Amino acid sequence: MAGKGNFMDNKEKLGLIVSKVKSPDKKYYVLAQEKLDNLTKPLGSLGRLEELAKQIVGISGNLEPVLDKKYIVTMAADHGVVDEGISAYPQEVTLQMVYNFLRGGAGINVLSKHIGAEVVVVDMGVASDLEKSPSLINKKIGYGTKNMAKGAAMTSEEAVASIIAGIEIVEEYAKKGAKIIGTGDMGIGNTTSSSAIVSVIAGVDASMVTGYGTGLDEKGLANKIEVIKKAISLNKPNPNDGLDVLAKVGGFEIGGIAGLVIGCAYMKIPVVIDGFISGAGAMIAQSICPASKEYMIASHQSVEKGHKVMMDKLGLKPLFNLDMRLGEGTGAALGIGLAEASVKILNEMATFKEAGVSEKSS
Amino acid sequence: MAGKGNFMDNKEKLGLIVSKVKSPDKKYYVLAQEKLDNLTKPLGSLGRLEELAKQIVGISGNLEPVLDKKYIVTMAADHGVVDEGISAYPQEVTLQMVYNFLRGGAGINVLSKHIGAEVVVVDMGVASDLEKSPSLINKKIGYGTKNMAKGAAMTSEEAVASIIAGIEIVEEYAKKGAKIIGTGDMGIGNTTSSSAIVSVIAGVDASMVTGYGTGLDEKGLANKIEVIKKAISLNKPNPNDGLDVLAKVGGFEIGGIAGLVIGCAYMKIPVVIDGFISGAGAMIAQSICPASKEYMIASHQSVEKGHKVMMDKLGLKPLFNLDMRLGEGTGAALGIGLAEASVKILNEMATFKEAGVSEKSS
Repeated sequence: MAGKGNFMDNKEKLGLIVSKVKSPDKKYYVLAQEKLDNLTKPLGSLGRLEELAKQIVGISGNLEPVLDKKYIVTMAADHGVVDEGISAYPQEVTLQMVYNFLRGGAGINVLSKHIGAEVVVVDMGVASDLEKSPSLINKKIGYGTKNMAKGAAMTSEEAVASIIAGIEIVEEYAKKGAKIIGTGDMGIGNTTSSSAIVSVIAGVDASMVTGYGTGLDEKGLANKIEVIKKAISLNKPNPNDGLDVLAKVGGFEIGGIAGLVIGCAYMKIPVVIDGFISGAGAMIAQSICPASKEYMIASHQSVEKGHKVMMDKLGLKPLFNLDMRLGEGTGAALGIGLAEASVKILNEMATFKEAGVSEKSS
Repeated sequence: MAGKGNFMDNKEKLGLIVSKVKSPDKKYYVLAQEKLDNLTKPLGSLGRLEELAKQIVGISGNLEPVLDKKYIVTMAADHGVVDEGISAYPQEVTLQMVYNFLRGGAGINVLSKHIGAEVVVVDMGVASDLEKSPSLINKKIGYGTKNMAKGAAMTSEEAVASIIAGIEIVEEYAKKGAKIIGTGDMGIGNTTSSSAIVSVIAGVDASMVTGYGTGLDEKGLANKIEVIKKAISLNKPNPNDGLDVLAKVGGFEIGGIAGLVIGCAYMKIPVVIDGFISGAGAMIAQSICPASKEYMIASHQSVEKGHKVMMDKLGLKPLFNLDMRLGEGTGAALGIGLAEASVKILNEMATFKEAGVSEKSS
């Protein structure tokens, strides 16, 4: 299968990449602030747009960043834990939605087009074979994870391979000139896996971070919480070892998203984190590669219970809250729109001097 | 001067227009909801984007609204109350910024271009004459308002004329095919006027709704609050009469914005309200024409103290909070971007049937 190299090679590659991720050079934050403070507006009056512009300058090491090549990478995979009845939708919806992405009919297609981004669809581990398509990248690690309520979701080898697959995608799109990348997901059952991840890493009870997903009722939610608790007590993931958490209660697309984040940090590309599932991937990434956090831009506050705990643990503050919970990268797409607006402010606004506008009298 | 008709004619025109503003037809909300619920996503999972799409369908009476013609109308005027030392910037900045708008160098130019909107700059009452420009509309009511700390800011005739000027602009741009309009402002001193308006209409003490504006210090803020209290106690505006409030403590651009809102409600065009100053205009509009509220879309939660009281009184919930406080229409521009995203969801996403995706199993 694609995405799978030799385990030791993959593990070594991941270790090497993680060791090369450094914090952005702080001097660019200072230079960007100086530039912003000369623009024709009261100091700081564009609030978080200014912070966003500074972060992108810092990450890219470019005082005039132009986000002309934008990608949303939507990672799809299936989850063995669906056998426990934790989703309101049948498993085949993962496959059906991947085809919907490829035909351009999903929410993520519409919002990506709106902001001028290209959608990259990745088969990280859908439960059946997909027809070939020029818009589909095959990084299949397996035909869905195993049922985490009965054992580990995947092997350590698969966990590493899923992350490497994500990194490889960033390397490929960096060559194509990617200036910003948004994360996205599709996978029936993946809010269960994501709740398990945040429960373990943040050290909070599953009931505090488990929500209705795509539309469970109260009874379904109670069952979902029990399944997560069972999976955690059975597999005993090590909260301080992101790879172990990914292998035991994660998903292939979540590993892929962790890889996207680490890959973006490695290639110095800002990475816009979508909602709950992408947040789980970001938690895995931060556990493995703490410096990757400074490359993350949190897009929206998801409705899904547990997302706030995730953001707090990551130390991220989402840009907006529109009560969304679709996934796919839809929040990331809107976030990229704001990121682009922020750098345009930096690049296109006139300075006080250029415009002949008087500065504050003080 | 432009924008000034005969008082009785203007008053009659305003009354006639207000009497013709009706609530949007609720049947379109139902039809839009049905359409949204057939799209390939869990029910309601796009949250406020779905509400926004429904509102725009309801306002326009069109199940496939296309927001291809977008305008930000930035209204500029001066305020006599600057004599009281309530602003951190000198009065000439109003004029200088209008020229900056016309040359395309301001924040609103950059963000409007980003979302594909045209900026319409209106001289509602700048304190000096402006050079003619094809992009500038002259609706000058006067050379700045009078100092409200010493008497009424304007006459009743001027208040009505400023609102009529805003309505006329909507009529003109509706003919050009405007599908959505954002409000914007420029006017040194106008947070003082806006705080006075919200203090009077919401019935709260000036100290609760007065903020730092473009950058006052603590001493400046204390003075600003005293000036507002003095203006209110001297002029005694009637809290239940928006026209009286506008005349006594308002501004020409705020009257213009109230006119934009009423004009949009009259012409069935969604109107996106910017921040604090536009919120004051929206309060005047709601007081004069309560049904106009259903045509308003609140864009962002402003940093400026008092904006939350304003939104609560209006019954509006802003779409996002990016800690912005620039005005000009910058928040409205980002809000229009979201509005356009919302109707594209409605128009461009595939249905479950079209995409062959299974629906929720329940």
